[in-house]
Amino acid sequence: MATTAVAGLELLRLGAVGADGLPLAGLTVGGASLEEATGLVGYDELVVGGWDLDGSDLYKAAEQHGVLDLRQLQQAEPLLSTITPWPAAGDADFCRNVTGGNVVLAEGRRAQVDAVRADLRRFREEQQLDGLVLLNLASTERWPDPAAACLQTPEAFEAGLDADDRAITPSMVYAYAAITEGVGYANFTPSLSADVPALVQLAEQRGVPIAGKDGKTGQTMMKTVLAPAFRSRALTVEGWYSTNILGNRDGLALDDPASLESKLQTKAKVLDSILGYPVEDHVVRIDYYRPRGDQKEAWDAIDLVGFLGQRMQIKVDFQCRDSILAAPLAVEIVRLVDLAQQRGEGGVQRHLGWFFKAPITADGSTPEHALHRQESELMDWLAGGSVVVPGPR
Amino acid sequence: MATTAVAGLELLRLGAVGADGLPLAGLTVGGASLEEATGLVGYDELVVGGWDLDGSDLYKAAEQHGVLDLRQLQQAEPLLSTITPWPAAGDADFCRNVTGGNVVLAEGRRAQVDAVRADLRRFREEQQLDGLVLLNLASTERWPDPAAACLQTPEAFEAGLDADDRAITPSMVYAYAAITEGVGYANFTPSLSADVPALVQLAEQRGVPIAGKDGKTGQTMMKTVLAPAFRSRALTVEGWYSTNILGNRDGLALDDPASLESKLQTKAKVLDSILGYPVEDHVVRIDYYRPRGDQKEAWDAIDLVGFLGQRMQIKVDFQCRDSILAAPLAVEIVRLVDLAQQRGEGGVQRHLGWFFKAPITADGSTPEHALHRQESELMDWLAGGSVVVPGPR
Amino acid sequence: MATTAVAGLELLRLGAVGADGLPLAGLTVGGASLEEATGLVGYDELVVGGWDLDGSDLYKAAEQHGVLDLRQLQQAEPLLSTITPWPAAGDADFCRNVTGGNVVLAEGRRAQVDAVRADLRRFREEQQLDGLVLLNLASTERWPDPAAACLQTPEAFEAGLDADDRAITPSMVYAYAAITEGVGYANFTPSLSADVPALVQLAEQRGVPIAGKDGKTGQTMMKTVLAPAFRSRALTVEGWYSTNILGNRDGLALDDPASLESKLQTKAKVLDSILGYPVEDHVVRIDYYRPRGDQKEAWDAIDLVGFLGQRMQIKVDFQCRDSILAAPLAVEIVRLVDLAQQRGEGGVQRHLGWFFKAPITADGSTPEHALHRQESELMDWLAGGSVVVPGPR
Amino acid sequence: MATTAVAGLELLRLGAVGADGLPLAGLTVGGASLEEATGLVGYDELVVGGWDLDGSDLYKAAEQHGVLDLRQLQQAEPLLSTITPWPAAGDADFCRNVTGGNVVLAEGRRAQVDAVRADLRRFREEQQLDGLVLLNLASTERWPDPAAACLQTPEAFEAGLDADDRAITPSMVYAYAAITEGVGYANFTPSLSADVPALVQLAEQRGVPIAGKDGKTGQTMMKTVLAPAFRSRALTVEGWYSTNILGNRDGLALDDPASLESKLQTKAKVLDSILGYPVEDHVVRIDYYRPRGDQKEAWDAIDLVGFLGQRMQIKVDFQCRDSILAAPLAVEIVRLVDLAQQRGEGGVQRHLGWFFKAPITADGSTPEHALHRQESELMDWLAGGSVVVPGPR
Ligand SMILES: NC(=O)c1ccc[n+]([C@@H]2O[C@H](COP(=O)([O-])OP(=O)(O)OC[C@H]3O[C@@H](n4cnc5c(N)ncnc54)[C@H](O)[C@@H]3O)[C@@H](O)[C@H]2O)c1
Ligand SMILES: NC(=O)c1ccc[n+]([C@@H]2O[C@H](COP(=O)([O-])OP(=O)(O)OC[C@H]3O[C@@H](n4cnc5c(N)ncnc54)[C@H](O)[C@@H]3O)[C@@H](O)[C@H]2O)c1
Ligand SMILES: NC(=O)c1ccc[n+]([C@@H]2O[C@H](COP(=O)([O-])OP(=O)(O)OC[C@H]3O[C@@H](n4cnc5c(N)ncnc54)[C@H](O)[C@@H]3O)[C@@H](O)[C@H]2O)c1
Ligand SMILES: NC(=O)c1ccc[n+]([C@@H]2O[C@H](COP(=O)([O-])OP(=O)(O)OC[C@H]3O[C@@H](n4cnc5c(N)ncnc54)[C@H](O)[C@@H]3O)[C@@H](O)[C@H]2O)c1
Ligand code: NA
Ligand code: NA
Repeated sequence: MATTAVAGLELLRLGAVGADGLPLAGLTVGGASLEEATGLVGYDELVVGGWDLDGSDLYKAAEQHGVLDLRQLQQAEPLLSTITPWPAAGDADFCRNVTGGNVVLAEGRRAQVDAVRADLRRFREEQQLDGLVLLNLASTERWPDPAAACLQTPEAFEAGLDADDRAITPSMVYAYAAITEGVGYANFTPSLSADVPALVQLAEQRGVPIAGKDGKTGQTMMKTVLAPAFRSRALTVEGWYSTNILGNRDGLALDDPASLESKLQTKAKVLDSILGYPVEDHVVRIDYYRPRGDQKEAWDAIDLVGFLGQRMQIKVDFQCRDSILAAPLAVEIVRLVDLAQQRGEGGVQRHLGWFFKAPITADGSTPEHALHRQESELMDWLAGGSVVVPGPR
Repeated sequence: MATTAVAGLELLRLGAVGADGLPLAGLTVGGASLEEATGLVGYDELVVGGWDLDGSDLYKAAEQHGVLDLRQLQQAEPLLSTITPWPAAGDADFCRNVTGGNVVLAEGRRAQVDAVRADLRRFREEQQLDGLVLLNLASTERWPDPAAACLQTPEAFEAGLDADDRAITPSMVYAYAAITEGVGYANFTPSLSADVPALVQLAEQRGVPIAGKDGKTGQTMMKTVLAPAFRSRALTVEGWYSTNILGNRDGLALDDPASLESKLQTKAKVLDSILGYPVEDHVVRIDYYRPRGDQKEAWDAIDLVGFLGQRMQIKVDFQCRDSILAAPLAVEIVRLVDLAQQRGEGGVQRHLGWFFKAPITADGSTPEHALHRQESELMDWLAGGSVVVPGPR
Repeated sequence: MATTAVAGLELLRLGAVGADGLPLAGLTVGGASLEEATGLVGYDELVVGGWDLDGSDLYKAAEQHGVLDLRQLQQAEPLLSTITPWPAAGDADFCRNVTGGNVVLAEGRRAQVDAVRADLRRFREEQQLDGLVLLNLASTERWPDPAAACLQTPEAFEAGLDADDRAITPSMVYAYAAITEGVGYANFTPSLSADVPALVQLAEQRGVPIAGKDGKTGQTMMKTVLAPAFRSRALTVEGWYSTNILGNRDGLALDDPASLESKLQTKAKVLDSILGYPVEDHVVRIDYYRPRGDQKEAWDAIDLVGFLGQRMQIKVDFQCRDSILAAPLAVEIVRLVDLAQQRGEGGVQRHLGWFFKAPITADGSTPEHALHRQESELMDWLAGGSVVVPGPR
Repeated sequence: MATTAVAGLELLRLGAVGADGLPLAGLTVGGASLEEATGLVGYDELVVGGWDLDGSDLYKAAEQHGVLDLRQLQQAEPLLSTITPWPAAGDADFCRNVTGGNVVLAEGRRAQVDAVRADLRRFREEQQLDGLVLLNLASTERWPDPAAACLQTPEAFEAGLDADDRAITPSMVYAYAAITEGVGYANFTPSLSADVPALVQLAEQRGVPIAGKDGKTGQTMMKTVLAPAFRSRALTVEGWYSTNILGNRDGLALDDPASLESKLQTKAKVLDSILGYPVEDHVVRIDYYRPRGDQKEAWDAIDLVGFLGQRMQIKVDFQCRDSILAAPLAVEIVRLVDLAQQRGEGGVQRHLGWFFKAPITADGSTPEHALHRQESELMDWLAGGSVVVPGPR
């Protein structure tokens, strides 16, 4: 998906594709473009670099993923083939099904932090960047123990790094490195990462914006669209069965029960707070199924109770493209975290909840999940009361 | 569906069913119930009477519809068997598939008006009512010529009645009768009815609230939930294919191409204004299919274009119960039109758009269609800025 | 489902229901009814008794299952309330989610066998039966070790009973008891039961017909209808994803991973032999989901490759009624095993493969799975070359 | 679809694609390939030419259809660009939505016949063919009057041609031309064509094999797979609702109600004879819906009644590729009609019913529709009792 985002930015730049899927494209405020009105950085001003366990250049990666069509692959090749991932901070114990040799040699957590920080500094200088945001797009890690002592305060976290405490996961290494470098951080994955008191407090102390977690793209996005409507029409949700089949590398990662648990955690929570009562029969399944590749399919069976206690059913079958839904959101998140940085707003970015399945809240309270209310929050933050007008599309 | 509403009110009164499906049940404003806070009439204060081409009592009707289950039918029987419809103002030319002998003998439009007005006055007196609302729940009429001269001004309409002008449909007879009697009027059907300049102006002149048209219950309700989300996520809707199968008497009425046209008109319009561009391949089908009875099924196939111009699909299969979805909305509309009357607000009730597929607007302009924005409008009107808090369910 | 079968036979007898769902009803051979032509026992000649861990009478059981409608329940009550299950041969270790107190007190396997045999003898005498068949309709047991020594020969099995060897499961107790009593045995469940060399050989030695296993009713039945067509049209099955949701007690039993494994075993095998190649991405899921009760839903996503290597998809959503599909098959199996007994045909009843997901074969070879070829085999066995003519329905 | 067939044969020849979708590929009889065992002509021995209203070469046609992927298009280009359709025998009155300028100048039916016959003779000579088959793959014509006098006998047909009787349709012109030239004729379209007494008798008189009509590829194929299973399991079909959406030129042709009627005729008949009773609520819809292009989608909602009169539902969603399903069948039909010619078997080819929605029968009687029984008939004809063994795939 990272590769798809990079390719997409390049194809946009070349005029080879339109702005479909980019939610902030074409918006205007009082007649001016959103970028002019708010200082939001333009799509064509973004420069991308990053880490991956797999050291192949992005052209090779894109060829393998099969997301771009043949023509798009050719158009993006000149750029993609020049981008090679930096050695990553990995730990096979946290993501058993995805491995690769492109790793930071130092194995201790502190040393990994130092390597990531060095990369950030180097990249900022080399590219002479005005702003910098680190977005986690790595494979889903297994769920760590969120109650571990070293995750409770910034000080304990520091000590944990020095003691190489394995309650600290690779994604926390990246988050910590970003925050301490004053680099905005967002987490598109279900990995716990910055969603622990230690890192939330650190981000607040340093005034660094953070956001996450788990991009809300397919089935869960639909859930947060439908559930508010059911509540609004007083249709009681008696049960909601959701299954997903996907065959890309994300699916392979989730084929490891430990990683899967992280994903199911973020997916499970959205219903009850929207509806105002617990849905006891809310079942979520994710199955690795290769014929599908990146063309994820999500099937939902919803059981409703209406007037006179009578039952109704809705089935939703979303035949989506996983990376196609996710990549443009990743791009927008980066632009918005950068804008928060420009505005000097640090800590948890509440108004970015629109992008995530399990929005971080500063105090661990239940976040807003309804998509349309999340959208309003974002638009309010963006334009401060002025009306944001959608573009022709 | 009228019968289901009456039975439902009775079963509520008896405590035999809960409030599922009733959107305004259990809402509170500043700690008080919505009824206390606003003067909205309670469910158990409603008294029902009405017209039907079929003169059977409501128990016989309910038996035939097969919407109530056996136990509910028995519980509601004592009330239902006492209600017999009044002779109706019909015209076979406007609804070829639904006929019945329980008709006003006088055939001219003016005479029909007089009969309906007399019924309204009699009912108000007999029942000693504080307020009265006429809700059109009759079978769908064929589409008349909306440009007919007699439909343009109140005066022309009066002349039309006298001349027995057949551009005036039976549903207009009811609407006109209500307005001239100072009785609030709402139209749950796709029939054009009050949605003509003559009757809109008359309602404004007389300060009588009117609302309509075509209850938004199943597929179209879902459409106005999903389309805003697609726009919000910048997923371009390339096409939307909708088919409906139903086997109740409404389905039989719509099996007449003339009546069907009315329904397709109200269904077709919701997408484009929400999305901001025309969806050229928006196809809507309704088919009469008897095995389904009242258990309507709506199947949607939606074609989306996302990032990089790549395509995705969503299928939605809504296996609903037609009358179960509609009846509670009918009840709420009546309560809300009555509240408007109490507040002295006449003319088109814009904030009731939430209930309708094709909300009437005073000036014929495009109405809001997005369900969540319609809901906000209604809540604002109800509580005037105070927050309406949903109940436990 | 056993209760549904008993109730159904009674409602048939009363003329309260038709023969829908009974595959052998109304068939004729050379102008005569199948019963006349072959000696097959009539539906109204069947007498039912049996064991259950739950000692409630069948009327109470039927009330709880919610399969019969209110009227049917009332019609069947006089009979159902007179039938009380006999104390069962259970073992909580083999079916953790289904327990009950109506058990044979003796716990050893040999003692359980003796109790079951005594019941069979008593029932045969009391009812003065011409024939007797034992059909296993108990909850799914966990998968035992099929390689256990005591399951390999009749002699080893005898010794195992005496030694109370726990490789012998409760369902084997029933099977063994039936065979040694000369009572035909069929297994409608996925439990291994008679499908071990020891019992197959015993049945052959004693000339007692046996059949099984796992009734083929919903998703798997459809699979064995569709797969032959895909092969016939040379559409290559690249993957087949099947999920099931059900909320009855069978679902609860399968919510125990140990029992689930038995079910998945019988479900997994049908595809490859029909298609002639292994489908590597054949995934089967069963999830316990209470809102559905007995109204099981099976959703299949099938990925096909056609001409020019191009891909197509089929989705099948079967919203069935579990017991409604199964009960009539159970009835027919009993009639057919009895007919085999009349004909003196012992051992594995190959021609009954039509009824089962995992037909037993005498030598453990791969059985025929295609539904239409299984049907031909059965019809050939029934009418010996004469044409079986289906009835008006 | 004609173009797809030609391209497919070429890609097979080049080894660029496998035999998926070709039902007779890889079959063996007694160890020998079907071709060796029966004289069936090999795929690589076929030579193709034909008529089209559109005079573009097949490469241009293929580019427009978007059925081949980019790489396949390039591989087939050398051949496709050399094939240009011959001027066609058209008549805008019979297919209003599909027009083109590549027409036989002579407009009278007799003159059209002469032109087609001349083409057949020329092609046979130029290519030095051993056998020749004419397969109708043209757009669907409107339904003519099958009772017209000129369609009842060969003599009347002759007279009709001379009198330029417009009861004779363009597809009949091709059929007649083929039969009189001794060229086997098959009709893959729903057009009535050879399915009239005049042409059936002529084919019998001349000993020329004919077959048709309307290739059975998607929804109808599935129907003839599922319906036999429902009958076999005694599940009564209470209703069957079928809708199709497609956006290719075939869809455009069917967007003309006159052509649509032909298609609906062939689709409607398959159920009742398989089931043995009339399904009153059998509804078939075809809608032109452009986003789908050649990727037709067929959605079926099936209502079943089972044991105890209880209801169940099945939904089937077939997301197929229209030409991908049809093209390989077209190829096999040609091979089989040629084999009939080799065997000297003229008249209606009953055993080819497997390929068609509405198989012609010599005497107008109801044909076999169940797919598996049709397959048996074909295999019997092919191998005369010997077993046909399917290949590895
Ligand atoms: N629709 C979506 O695609 C979507 C939605 C929500 C969340 N997500 C999440 O986004 C993440 C990425 O998804 P994807 O589809 O791009 O997966 P992917 O497998 O294509 O890419 C993940 C990449 O991360 C690399 N990686 C793994 N561990 C790493 C580490 N410690 N450091 C650096 N790189 C590492 C892998 O080598 C791989 O190249 C996943 O966690 C996924 O769950 C995706
Ligand atoms: N979900 C829904 O049920 C739903 C949603 C939106 C709109 N509607 C509309 O509501 C209306 C009622 O639907 P229904 O399901 O109750 O239909 P229905 O057929 O059960 O009831 C309609 C009744 O109207 C009577 N009628 C017909 N013409 C009349 C006339 N001129 N005067 C008096 N009575 C007359 C008929 O005899 C019939 O009893 C229809 O127009 C339908 O399109 C229903
Ligand atoms: N469509 C179908 O219903 C279907 C299809 C194929 C197979 N089956 C199998 O048939 C079996 C019965 O299904 P059901 O829906 O009737 O389940 P159920 O739970 O309604 O009934 C099973 C009964 O078996 C009893 N039982 C459990 N262990 C027992 C024992 N050792 N001795 C005696 N009784 C015992 C339970 O108390 C329960 O009453 C299950 O194994 C199921 O997997 C059912
Ligand atoms: N799955 C399938 O594709 C399928 C299945 C069954 C039947 N069919 C039938 O096969 C036929 C062809 O389908 P298609 O998808 O290839 O359609 P198509 O529109 O792609 O091709 C039909 C061609 O026929 C040409 N044509 C029209 N009238 C003609 C005439 N009188 N003489 C010569 N050419 C003429 C048109 O110009 C067009 O190029 C249609 O009738 C269709 O209903 C197709
Ligand atoms: Na309706
Ligand atoms: Na079961």
